[in-house]
Amino acid sequence: MEAWRQLSNKEATLLDRVFWSSGISRTGLAQGAAVSKSRANAAVAALLEQGLIETAAARQDTGGRRAETLRLSPSLGVLVGVAMGATGLEVGVLAPDMEMLAHHSEPADVRDGPARVLARVRVLMRELLARCGRKPHEVIGIGIGVPGPVHFERAQLVNPPLMPEWDSYAIRDDLRADFAAPVWVDNDVNVMALGELWRMQRQMANFVVIKVGTGIGCGIVCHGEVYRGASGSAGDVGHICVDPHGPRCHCGNVGCVEAMAGGRAIARLAEEAARAGQSQMLRSLLDEQGTLRLADVAQASRAGDVAANAIVQRAGLQVGQMLASVVNFYNPSHVFIGGSVQRFGPSFLAAVRQSVYQRSLPLSTRQLEIQYTPLAERAGIIGAATLAMQESLRRAQR
Amino acid sequence: MEAWRQLSNKEATLLDRVFWSSGISRTGLAQGAAVSKSRANAAVAALLEQGLIETAAARQDTGGRRAETLRLSPSLGVLVGVAMGATGLEVGVLAPDMEMLAHHSEPADVRDGPARVLARVRVLMRELLARCGRKPHEVIGIGIGVPGPVHFERAQLVNPPLMPEWDSYAIRDDLRADFAAPVWVDNDVNVMALGELWRMQRQMANFVVIKVGTGIGCGIVCHGEVYRGASGSAGDVGHICVDPHGPRCHCGNVGCVEAMAGGRAIARLAEEAARAGQSQMLRSLLDEQGTLRLADVAQASRAGDVAANAIVQRAGLQVGQMLASVVNFYNPSHVFIGGSVQRFGPSFLAAVRQSVYQRSLPLSTRQLEIQYTPLAERAGIIGAATLAMQESLRRAQR
Repeated sequence: MEAWRQLSNKEATLLDRVFWSSGISRTGLAQGAAVSKSRANAAVAALLEQGLIETAAARQDTGGRRAETLRLSPSLGVLVGVAMGATGLEVGVLAPDMEMLAHHSEPADVRDGPARVLARVRVLMRELLARCGRKPHEVIGIGIGVPGPVHFERAQLVNPPLMPEWDSYAIRDDLRADFAAPVWVDNDVNVMALGELWRMQRQMANFVVIKVGTGIGCGIVCHGEVYRGASGSAGDVGHICVDPHGPRCHCGNVGCVEAMAGGRAIARLAEEAARAGQSQMLRSLLDEQGTLRLADVAQASRAGDVAANAIVQRAGLQVGQMLASVVNFYNPSHVFIGGSVQRFGPSFLAAVRQSVYQRSLPLSTRQLEIQYTPLAERAGIIGAATLAMQESLRRAQR
Repeated sequence: MEAWRQLSNKEATLLDRVFWSSGISRTGLAQGAAVSKSRANAAVAALLEQGLIETAAARQDTGGRRAETLRLSPSLGVLVGVAMGATGLEVGVLAPDMEMLAHHSEPADVRDGPARVLARVRVLMRELLARCGRKPHEVIGIGIGVPGPVHFERAQLVNPPLMPEWDSYAIRDDLRADFAAPVWVDNDVNVMALGELWRMQRQMANFVVIKVGTGIGCGIVCHGEVYRGASGSAGDVGHICVDPHGPRCHCGNVGCVEAMAGGRAIARLAEEAARAGQSQMLRSLLDEQGTLRLADVAQASRAGDVAANAIVQRAGLQVGQMLASVVNFYNPSHVFIGGSVQRFGPSFLAAVRQSVYQRSLPLSTRQLEIQYTPLAERAGIIGAATLAMQESLRRAQR
């Protein structure tokens, strides 16, 4: 951490390049610098000597020589990533090269309010740091993804429908009680998009990540940067209308995709199917638990339950209908789908694709890839840690 | 033009700043340069001396002193902007500071094919240049907006539904027969968005321009740059579904906004209303002309015709419905509406706003402005000339 505090602007710029291109070679790093080759080489050597970067597991080069690749050194400190969902909480401690050092997830209800939830986050952070033998002062930065619209500069939620008590709550001040490290907060799907951007070493300029869980949201990457919109609410696709004659949503409008294909709608449809005697499996799960959740529908669907399959199909088609509008407007190269619907597996994805390919123009879909988020359930934590690292490096470069 | 050819990289960078900030002061221009103040001042003085920039009409400064503002000099050459619509053609010759020197518009049918239409464009270019006493070799660059998807690097249309004969036609080679100046082609709405970006001196980072004419399209500005998408088809909003139970569109799907609120749909609804005896005014226009066009509906609506008003209202609500999806996804600061619908005046705009405010989330609309394109009918030509200037300056900076 001391090393981190004393970074020069130039060093931070080089570290930034190593962070965003994991496995970059020594030559590659020197080449990209805006100074002469010899000065760049000297700077890289100095970083190595100070232990800010280190050579990573060598890999076979095409010429048979072993290429020396670089990565950020663990001695820089650690990052904390927090992924808050409407119904769950994940905290991770990561090395600067995004290696997961310690991780914990548990059910949680964001509606318990910020004081209680963040107190638990602080406890988990301390426990996880202790588990990997690190001290709070070694934390470079803390990144948090939350399921609602965020004022990024203030690190506060703004009128979040799923967690009203959090409106304008000073998350930074709350965590400062225990941790001196800077804190950044962003919408959960923006954070997932940032994580995927890191995974692809910023090589993919324009793509979207759709999260389908209790809510439905979208993270947008434009010109290689996360795009937050004019007032930070870009990607709020859950209330795009997919059927003007559809059911009423909690937002007041009718036919919102979230009201038709979000986690709650899926659970409700499953309970209806169970009660109507359309599915033995859903019926017994409902009797057992008293309620059904998206995970139950996924389990039944994977087991071949016809009613569950129909629900999964329908939700996929409706999400695809919303996505078709997004694809026509935004023409992304990739659509990554994350959140609890990943449990639905290939049949959901097939329905989404069918809908998009039917409703979007050929030019927009010719090279379009639609798949589940490659970082899968780690997308939230890796994204949150990426946010912390990106912003810490930006700050150090000023 | 000779002066233009001999521009150094540094000079081009300064000219670029003058172009994008019309009315910048001498001090302002020197301040933004990445070199020392005295060197920057010297560079600005040199540009003035070479006649590449000139001092413009002085304006009163707050302190009572007259501030000296700068603009690009006419001696740099001229720009040609071409705005091609499905049913009309406009050509303009502009000074480097976007002053319109000569301008001509006429009805045209893009379906006549590229050879005939571009032959006419070349004739008009020669005539307009002659009219303002300029020679073809003085043309710095030519910018063209076309109503279809464009492969920007190749300057070619790709599968354009409204103008199939233009698919992959080599527009650059065609114009090269008469003009040596470089040619850039982009989608008509992207070009309008670029024009508005210039008008606002790049101070507005994230906004969209919607054009409603025969087709419906959208130009997107993201992080202060026109966003074209992964395969150049971003903004293709005409086929966003606004009613899954709506009429069939020429694209094969049902309920596309273009099939319900585009120019052809509006004309068809007006003819139906005329034949059903719902409007005396539309009926007599139909009898007179044998057909009705969007302009007729606008005329009748402004004259208070009830049936025409209902058509305008309905189209506005449907365009607004599509826009609500765009606003939820993209959260732009401004939506500018252009194209023939500008003739509908305030009642169309009111219907669009009503629809957007009802269907978009409060956070996205809190600071959202929806208005007609401030550049109005000049948006296409100014945008095309801006494209030519932007790309010429980029080339000179390499």
